Amino acid sequence: MLFMVEMAVNIPHDMPAEVAADIKAREKQYSQDLQRAGKWPHIWRVVGQYRNVSIFDVQDNEELHNLLSGLPLFPYMDIQVTALCRHPSAI
Amino acid sequence: MLFMVEMAVNIPHDMPAEVAADIKAREKQYSQDLQRAGKWPHIWRVVGQYRNVSIFDVQDNEELHNLLSGLPLFPYMDIQVTALCRHPSAI
Amino acid sequence: MLFMVEMAVNIPHDMPAEVAADIKAREKQYSQDLQRAGKWPHIWRVVGQYRNVSIFDVQDNEELHNLLSGLPLFPYMDIQVTALCRHPSAI
Amino acid sequence: MLFMVEMAVNIPHDMPAEVAADIKAREKQYSQDLQRAGKWPHIWRVVGQYRNVSIFDVQDNEELHNLLSGLPLFPYMDIQVTALCRHPSAI
Amino acid sequence: MLFMVEMAVNIPHDMPAEVAADIKAREKQYSQDLQRAGKWPHIWRVVGQYRNVSIFDVQDNEELHNLLSGLPLFPYMDIQVTALCRHPSAI
Amino acid sequence: MLFMVEMAVNIPHDMPAEVAADIKAREKQYSQDLQRAGKWPHIWRVVGQYRNVSIFDVQDNEELHNLLSGLPLFPYMDIQVTALCRHPSAI
Amino acid sequence: MLFMVEMAVNIPHDMPAEVAADIKAREKQYSQDLQRAGKWPHIWRVVGQYRNVSIFDVQDNEELHNLLSGLPLFPYMDIQVTALCRHPSAI
Amino acid sequence: MLFMVEMAVNIPHDMPAEVAADIKAREKQYSQDLQRAGKWPHIWRVVGQYRNVSIFDVQDNEELHNLLSGLPLFPYMDIQVTALCRHPSAI
Amino acid sequence: MLFMVEMAVNIPHDMPAEVAADIKAREKQYSQDLQRAGKWPHIWRVVGQYRNVSIFDVQDNEELHNLLSGLPLFPYMDIQVTALCRHPSAI
Amino acid sequence: MLFMVEMAVNIPHDMPAEVAADIKAREKQYSQDLQRAGKWPHIWRVVGQYRNVSIFDVQDNEELHNLLSGLPLFPYMDIQVTALCRHPSAI
Repeated sequence: MLFMVEMAVNIPHDMPAEVAADIKAREKQYSQDLQRAGKWPHIWRVVGQYRNVSIFDVQDNEELHNLLSGLPLFPYMDIQVTALCRHPSAI
Repeated sequence: MLFMVEMAVNIPHDMPAEVAADIKAREKQYSQDLQRAGKWPHIWRVVGQYRNVSIFDVQDNEELHNLLSGLPLFPYMDIQVTALCRHPSAI
Repeated sequence: MLFMVEMAVNIPHDMPAEVAADIKAREKQYSQDLQRAGKWPHIWRVVGQYRNVSIFDVQDNEELHNLLSGLPLFPYMDIQVTALCRHPSAI
Repeated sequence: MLFMVEMAVNIPHDMPAEVAADIKAREKQYSQDLQRAGKWPHIWRVVGQYRNVSIFDVQDNEELHNLLSGLPLFPYMDIQVTALCRHPSAI
Repeated sequence: MLFMVEMAVNIPHDMPAEVAADIKAREKQYSQDLQRAGKWPHIWRVVGQYRNVSIFDVQDNEELHNLLSGLPLFPYMDIQVTALCRHPSAI
Repeated sequence: MLFMVEMAVNIPHDMPAEVAADIKAREKQYSQDLQRAGKWPHIWRVVGQYRNVSIFDVQDNEELHNLLSGLPLFPYMDIQVTALCRHPSAI
Repeated sequence: MLFMVEMAVNIPHDMPAEVAADIKAREKQYSQDLQRAGKWPHIWRVVGQYRNVSIFDVQDNEELHNLLSGLPLFPYMDIQVTALCRHPSAI
Repeated sequence: MLFMVEMAVNIPHDMPAEVAADIKAREKQYSQDLQRAGKWPHIWRVVGQYRNVSIFDVQDNEELHNLLSGLPLFPYMDIQVTALCRHPSAI
Repeated sequence: MLFMVEMAVNIPHDMPAEVAADIKAREKQYSQDLQRAGKWPHIWRVVGQYRNVSIFDVQDNEELHNLLSGLPLFPYMDIQVTALCRHPSAI
Repeated sequence: MLFMVEMAVNIPHDMPAEVAADIKAREKQYSQDLQRAGKWPHIWRVVGQYRNVSIFDVQDNEELHNLLSGLPLFPYMDIQVTALCRHPSAI
């Protein structure tokens, strides 16, 4: 079951650089684990912004929320979720 | 080069049913031709709306505009384009 | 799997009264069939508006889109879908 | 008398973790007491957000405001209230 | 129980003048009956707009919706409802 | 001359509790003095929010601005002013 | 007493040209009469739009509403009113 | 003196095709005359939309309004004007 | 050449009172100098807000930007600029 | 390939003046290098705002994102990107 997830990151300017670096490193690892597991099949950077557009493939809403709320950057993100389904013109 | 394209369709209520059916049939054909050509790699229906989220893969802005403005439903669409690029965490 | 669905109805002022009455009658029947089937467990009227707040309980996004796009009033509705899940404080 | 209440939580990033944990624990207790009392019949998590959609069942506006303004997280919430009533198609 | 109700009127330009005049006359009568009954204690015109700000005093949400949906101008109105209660500083 | 005034209060989270309490006490006194003087005939709490809807009755714009800018909470408020007049349907 | 009034004009495309010309001629006359009477001391065109920014000088809200609702173009305008007063830095 | 002008075109769906074609032909001629005269140094199509971003170089606000309000498509455009000046980092 | 300039002031709550007082005093002097020079012919306070509506009369965009960016309160202001010109109905 | 890029700068008020000056100096150098390289053919200041409108000429989305995310002021900017292409009326 597919969802488009748009994530905008807003790290406070007063966060110490090493704390930010650590969170980002854990975020990257977390994201790549989910990509390899097939849960996060697409992630694109929005040009000019600290923001991404992603596609998640999950069993249900519950799983999606668990995955998203577990993101190391979750407390610093503004996240929008859009439920998707098959388009009748898709080949 | 990837772009997210969001298309919302607003067909006037007074369009004759056979005109609408014809436009939609041509739209479907047009879309599937581009999908097969690899220009339109993803198209998803947004749940509960006459709207889609699509990913286009084009040579440049010019080609994207030509493809979009050629959509049979183009005069009845509200289209938003977002330039995408590779995400540093993408595997 | 639960979704909040907000539906605002905009029937064109020039729709003949008997056409509107027929669509509304079919909408009511359609809605009540889904309520009885357990797919549409809640529907509330928003006070002062031709709008409702509903909760749908479906197998997946696909089923939700099929149910919503089959609404007799669908062409005249502005629909917003919000994916829900269990709240950690829910008893 | 039913109301939809949407609560978005914005805890300041500089709140000490133990203070936040204490407020959240009291919030959970407060919410569950009201759920058991039948005042707060539904609470759902919005997927991907620190936000909930709730249904309250109260005697009047006064009672609703008292319940909401007494939430331990109230100073950190953005709350929207929508008055609901019976839908004519509800079974 | 008090509610602020904001009503903006949008009568279609192609409505025949005598139809509009009849609806407005019935609207005025309807409003004045409710004012005399104490259900609609305040109605003010917003300066420069075909819009009013009103205060309703009703038993519950159900009664408010019935009163508002019965307005002769209801199909041509955009209505916003805000639940009010006693302010702690009110004398 | 009547105005609707909507005031939303945003007290910074880091304001010391005793400072906030003092400002609020002065605000209450200030408001009640104006209510007794007939300048502020209505003040209602918006349910679920630290916000009020008020009606002011003043000689002119100048007086209204002086009253509002003198509010002890003025530096922490977001204020919207709407000019009102007699509605032709008011009894 | 001064007010800023912003007027955006939206004449329906299907209004016959001679009807539109007549309304605009009456609008111009009406506006110039009020300018000469000192009630409408400033009117400026917003560059690139069928919109103006005006300053009105009136006795009270009632008079302003009467002047605005009497505009021949009133049914085709979107009007915003902002109450003004003397600025403490004005010379 | 430079201005950014954003023009979105909304031609009514019921305009006869030959009328639309005539307006567009005159629009193109009008635009190219101004480009050749140096008044309209840049015009770009926004990808995926019937919209352009333009730069105008004019003597003053008056001239800009005259040029824009003379556009054959002006009655069908939504136009936004932004005043520009030299950037301190421009070479 | 005329422009409407709307300035909203947002002074940080933690700015020391004497710093704020100094900036405001310089702002007042700066504004009055420009008023006397005929560059800033109108400044009005928006009722109930720390905001003004002003009219500037300048040679060109460059001069307007220089005047505005030189405002002592500029770093704390949200400024909107609207290009104006003569209205065809102005007397 | 052309893009319009709108950059609004929001430097925190508590950033030390010398830090801000250093970032701005590096920003200016960075911008001028790209202008000289033909990558950033236009940059204009928006009158009255700490904001610019720019045109970038790049090979692809990837290059644009790299250029923008490398801006010394990037962490303090709100950036909007609009894909452009040749307008059919451009000479």
